[in-house]
Amino acid sequence: MASLQDIGMSAAINILSAIAFLVAFAILRLQPINDRVYFPKWYLKGIRGSPTHSQAFVRQLVNLDCKTYITFLNWMPAALKMPEPELIEHAGLDSTAFIRIYLLGLKIFMPITVLALVVLLPVNWTGKSLETMQNVTFSDIDKLSISNVPYGSDRFWAHLVMAYVFTFWTFYVLYNEYKIMANMRLHFLASEHRRPDQFTVLVRNVPPDTDESVSEHVEHFFCVNHPDTYITHQIVYNANNLASIVEKKKSLQNWLTYYENKYERFPSKKPTTKTGFFGLWGTKVDAIDYYAIERAKLSQEEEAERKKVISDPNTIVPAAFVSFKSRWGAAVCAQTQQSRNPTIWLTEWAPEPCDVYWANLAIPYFELTIRRLLMAVALFFLTFFFMIPITFVQSLANIEGIERVFPFLKKLIEKPTVRSLIQGFLPGIALKIFLILLPSILMLMSKIEGFTSLSSLEKRSAGKYHLFVLVNVFLGSIITGTALQQLKLFLQQAPTEFPKTVGVSIPMKATFFITYIMVDGWAGIAAEILRLVPLIIFHLKNTFLVKTEKDREQAMDPGCLSFAISEPRIQLYFLLGFVYCVVTPILLPFIIVFFAFAYMVFRHQIINVYNQKYESGATFWPDVHRRLIIGMIISQLLLTGLLSTKQADSSTPLLIVLPILTIWFHIFCKGRFESAFMKFPLEDAMVKDTLERATEPNLNMKAYLQNAYVHPVFKGGDLDGHLIIDDLENNPLVPTKRNSNRSSNFGSGRSSDVEL
Amino acid sequence: MASLQDIGMSAAINILSAIAFLVAFAILRLQPINDRVYFPKWYLKGIRGSPTHSQAFVRQLVNLDCKTYITFLNWMPAALKMPEPELIEHAGLDSTAFIRIYLLGLKIFMPITVLALVVLLPVNWTGKSLETMQNVTFSDIDKLSISNVPYGSDRFWAHLVMAYVFTFWTFYVLYNEYKIMANMRLHFLASEHRRPDQFTVLVRNVPPDTDESVSEHVEHFFCVNHPDTYITHQIVYNANNLASIVEKKKSLQNWLTYYENKYERFPSKKPTTKTGFFGLWGTKVDAIDYYAIERAKLSQEEEAERKKVISDPNTIVPAAFVSFKSRWGAAVCAQTQQSRNPTIWLTEWAPEPCDVYWANLAIPYFELTIRRLLMAVALFFLTFFFMIPITFVQSLANIEGIERVFPFLKKLIEKPTVRSLIQGFLPGIALKIFLILLPSILMLMSKIEGFTSLSSLEKRSAGKYHLFVLVNVFLGSIITGTALQQLKLFLQQAPTEFPKTVGVSIPMKATFFITYIMVDGWAGIAAEILRLVPLIIFHLKNTFLVKTEKDREQAMDPGCLSFAISEPRIQLYFLLGFVYCVVTPILLPFIIVFFAFAYMVFRHQIINVYNQKYESGATFWPDVHRRLIIGMIISQLLLTGLLSTKQADSSTPLLIVLPILTIWFHIFCKGRFESAFMKFPLEDAMVKDTLERATEPNLNMKAYLQNAYVHPVFKGGDLDGHLIIDDLENNPLVPTKRNSNRSSNFGSGRSSDVEL
Repeated sequence: MASLQDIGMSAAINILSAIAFLVAFAILRLQPINDRVYFPKWYLKGIRGSPTHSQAFVRQLVNLDCKTYITFLNWMPAALKMPEPELIEHAGLDSTAFIRIYLLGLKIFMPITVLALVVLLPVNWTGKSLETMQNVTFSDIDKLSISNVPYGSDRFWAHLVMAYVFTFWTFYVLYNEYKIMANMRLHFLASEHRRPDQFTVLVRNVPPDTDESVSEHVEHFFCVNHPDTYITHQIVYNANNLASIVEKKKSLQNWLTYYENKYERFPSKKPTTKTGFFGLWGTKVDAIDYYAIERAKLSQEEEAERKKVISDPNTIVPAAFVSFKSRWGAAVCAQTQQSRNPTIWLTEWAPEPCDVYWANLAIPYFELTIRRLLMAVALFFLTFFFMIPITFVQSLANIEGIERVFPFLKKLIEKPTVRSLIQGFLPGIALKIFLILLPSILMLMSKIEGFTSLSSLEKRSAGKYHLFVLVNVFLGSIITGTALQQLKLFLQQAPTEFPKTVGVSIPMKATFFITYIMVDGWAGIAAEILRLVPLIIFHLKNTFLVKTEKDREQAMDPGCLSFAISEPRIQLYFLLGFVYCVVTPILLPFIIVFFAFAYMVFRHQIINVYNQKYESGATFWPDVHRRLIIGMIISQLLLTGLLSTKQADSSTPLLIVLPILTIWFHIFCKGRFESAFMKFPLEDAMVKDTLERATEPNLNMKAYLQNAYVHPVFKGGDLDGHLIIDDLENNPLVPTKRNSNRSSNFGSGRSSDVEL
Repeated sequence: MASLQDIGMSAAINILSAIAFLVAFAILRLQPINDRVYFPKWYLKGIRGSPTHSQAFVRQLVNLDCKTYITFLNWMPAALKMPEPELIEHAGLDSTAFIRIYLLGLKIFMPITVLALVVLLPVNWTGKSLETMQNVTFSDIDKLSISNVPYGSDRFWAHLVMAYVFTFWTFYVLYNEYKIMANMRLHFLASEHRRPDQFTVLVRNVPPDTDESVSEHVEHFFCVNHPDTYITHQIVYNANNLASIVEKKKSLQNWLTYYENKYERFPSKKPTTKTGFFGLWGTKVDAIDYYAIERAKLSQEEEAERKKVISDPNTIVPAAFVSFKSRWGAAVCAQTQQSRNPTIWLTEWAPEPCDVYWANLAIPYFELTIRRLLMAVALFFLTFFFMIPITFVQSLANIEGIERVFPFLKKLIEKPTVRSLIQGFLPGIALKIFLILLPSILMLMSKIEGFTSLSSLEKRSAGKYHLFVLVNVFLGSIITGTALQQLKLFLQQAPTEFPKTVGVSIPMKATFFITYIMVDGWAGIAAEILRLVPLIIFHLKNTFLVKTEKDREQAMDPGCLSFAISEPRIQLYFLLGFVYCVVTPILLPFIIVFFAFAYMVFRHQIINVYNQKYESGATFWPDVHRRLIIGMIISQLLLTGLLSTKQADSSTPLLIVLPILTIWFHIFCKGRFESAFMKFPLEDAMVKDTLERATEPNLNMKAYLQNAYVHPVFKGGDLDGHLIIDDLENNPLVPTKRNSNRSSNFGSGRSSDVEL
């Protein structure tokens, strides 16, 4: 067990590395050449431009003004300066709501920390149970924890009372936060400009009709059942194939540009490539000619596919975007059941045009339920049995295995340095690769489950990741052993035994988690702000692919907040806070530092860097709230288990009340607020409609809505955002700025993913 | 353990008692004097009248036609003759759906029984494991059960395969039944005559407004937010106090009539009564004068209260019935969220006027959640700890205790016969009283939970009763011991151990459950048709209270199907069937007989006797389906537990798949059908509206809806139904027949409750 000195040492190392990251960031971000890496948001907003050419060339690349280096932390107050309403306007409600989770952590844990340090620390410290015991090794941290209180002591009443106080305080803060968030969302929806999704409903599972096309069928159905409000609809084409051709063409275009640039810079040597796999083998050909021909071929193919998609009735998917004259009409249609068969004519709020996940719009009900069943089973196995294939791969990936598969590498491997490197490196690599791939696996699973918007995909992935973190990081660290072993333990022990087994180990793991918080929470967050990977990629692209100013814009990758990965990781900190606030209060200040630091860093990032792909209006908040409640219940059960092993059994009935109250609180909050995130109240819809009718009586809604929901691949023949902008700018009714900001990233993968 | 002979004996006794009941029924029902007890439904329908006075007086009372006695079972084919559509028309969809549960039991278990008897019985019989074992007592029943298969035998594959076959067959039947029921309901709703509740939405939690009255506030809100469809609304008065006065007055009126009749028959002696508690002590007074004065007093009080309710704005409850021009408008309003605060302006389909539970319309959201929390906790304690107070009462209720409290009874008690009677009788009486009161207690709990319609109250009570039956009858019989002991067992054993513990005991309890089925299912159902309690009460009333033909009509108590009590009891039979179909298939024929017999009896009862208080359109079906699924899952888990103790562990993974499939099947069915029981599709609403507009273009909807939802106490100053009929008959737009049928029972307690 680590002593206070060890912890101090670890803290020093982590603080130093965090400072190193911050200094590096301070230096790099001031260089004009990196401007597009550290301030891409402002470029996308059109507020910031490239350095003017009137300056000296060197000054365009390097900042020589020494004064600016001295105040290297001045981004912190700057990040905090922007007021919240402006932040919502600037970065969207999703991002603002996301960083409020960190703020929520501060709100919950600051008073708890003060109270815990003032009350519980002295109670534990003066318990002196450990010192009187013999043959027990303990550290200073343990003396500050509940372990130091003697068995059956009356001092446990202090912990019990504090558990109640902390729970009620958390209720209070959570309730207020949910309320604020619900109002913020409704205010956001109410104050938004006119957007197509406000008037549109996504209709899925249009039943087949022998006499009518999908389009006619949809039109007739809604003309009959919503006669006063229906205005128009757009059918959905299955353009998945076309989209992949366009994507392929774009990659070829990149290679072509690369070789053209190369030839331009070194005109002496014509670049060549090989036709085989990744240009590694095959016939040697002239690269520029080769890629030009390939691109031309693909262009033809694309043209043919495009014609096929539009003309072939089989590519029309049984789904449609139905638009209404008023928000009221759309709200009514989205919230009601249309047909007597509730699995056809399914209506829901249409996601934002750039939030639509097009590939999933046409899954029939039966298939959908089968997919969900399979994915639920898969998630179970992934969570509890993922170590089995990894162990298997690890057993293969030893030196002998490599030598057998790749005999030609034998000589290289036999060298002592290489050999020791491989031996030290290989065993962990399979696990590491799995953990890096995990978010993508989970996202793929969510996609298979058939959700129709990117925001809901992210939400579902976050739920899966949360389960994984809970089982494999939290429980896995406490009960050392694989998840499979835990599962066995859980199944073979009485339900009342499990909290005891885990609860007993809790105080012993405090130092481990303190170190974890410092490594992952402090240094990890500082690394986040440095954006090393996007920095390198940008400079690579800038060197090889960029010809024009427009290319440079494309090379810029602002990335975005990845809710699916970041949120479950924040939840882990909340969970640690809830669990240790009564048991080992000394852990709390470390969490406070994490929340405060992360809040500043991510506020800076959403102001200057990230560019969200879509705006869902903080629909994820109910999930955040639910997972916080789960964390609270886990902590309460573990505390019950821990205290019952401390011969403080009389506290059990009192502690059991807490999870019941927490569940009640959850149900209460759910009823009170959740629908604000699901439904759009008719009252608000009516107010907006009335206002709009008064201010713009001659608005042509039909023209406005006609082409709002077109598969991005039809918006100008390129998945790239700029053509969309051109397209949209021709339509004076669409608010171009917002859309251009968001859609420019459409189709590009998440890039600044934070891995576990 | 009972042998086959014991079972045969028990069967003979129960069959004989069932036949005795049936013969008694056959004789009694043919007497004209009992006509109103056994055929009240037809009187209420107005099809059957009292025997004509032209006949001899004796023939009015006793049936002397011998021929009619010979065919004493002819009610059975008669009960089956009425086709289903006519039955729905005659008895309502609720009743028809209810007896379909018995039919469902036959559909599920008939093929299962055949298959189980043909396949599993020989497999078990030839297992011969019990005969080879020594020191084991076993019966013939056990030889037919899974106990007879040797440990680790390959024969278990037969049980495994059968478990799959039975599960899939049940899926198939349940799916079809859900489908039929959903179509039946939608067809019922579509083919119904115009009814006020089709156009009306119940709005609760109208927020207070300082400037407007509730009525104005409601009108303005819906005029603004549903401008095209809103037509009128009715406010709700808090008339609970008035209703209790009216109820009291009615009881006084009964006493008055009783004494007047008495005086009329024996004019020599003026009847007297005592003023104290139940006329047992106090001053002796002239009974007729006394009750006449008391009634007059109450009449004044009632008048004053009536004025107060109407004039005092504080008696107006923040709830209202809002009516719309079209069914479409009502469907939209009921399914959408009105306000940004989802706890105010709550809208839901209005229940039928006579389905409204008026006392619960004005509970604010926060209070509601608190009430539900408290009731959930109370239900837990009631289910698991109910034996504690009963044991306590039992310990008090012994001879010595009685002598201490009532010393004057000492002499009476000391007599040997009385003494032995009390000693044999007392210990069980507390439990028996509790079980008789249980449904009322559960109903009271549901009322406290704040549901607003009688149908939802019944549904909730059924859920609670199901839990009680599951824990205390099913599990309590298998693991002998109180629920509290079971709870301890459950908490102290590993989750995998519990199914084993219970599963092992399952085969041993087969004979017990066979006897239970015969007593409760066969003889109990036969007793149901005899209607002994209503028969006695009718004749008592007829003797003492009836003066006019109208009085006689009131004395008639048709009773009704009590969903809250009967449905959970049917579920127990389903559960037994699911559990034993693989383990001890010989139990199945007994269940089949129960289902078939009960189907006939209840079909007869709903045709000739019961008169439902309300019509909810089979909204309870999702509950029935869910509880069947729960039964299936329990049976599958127990089978897994049982087989794993039989050293057939290799079957565990295969058996674990079954509950997962069952849960998936439930989710699938829920998504596919449930909303048919919750929501009214806009398509159907539109069709009905259009049709109506075409056939009756000049209908005055406002007049039709104006007074549909008036507290029954205002409908003529008497809770009694006849005045309601008068009232409604003046309004030519309201279909009087239906309403009169239903409302005539309003306010009267359930009377033909079947107790455990």
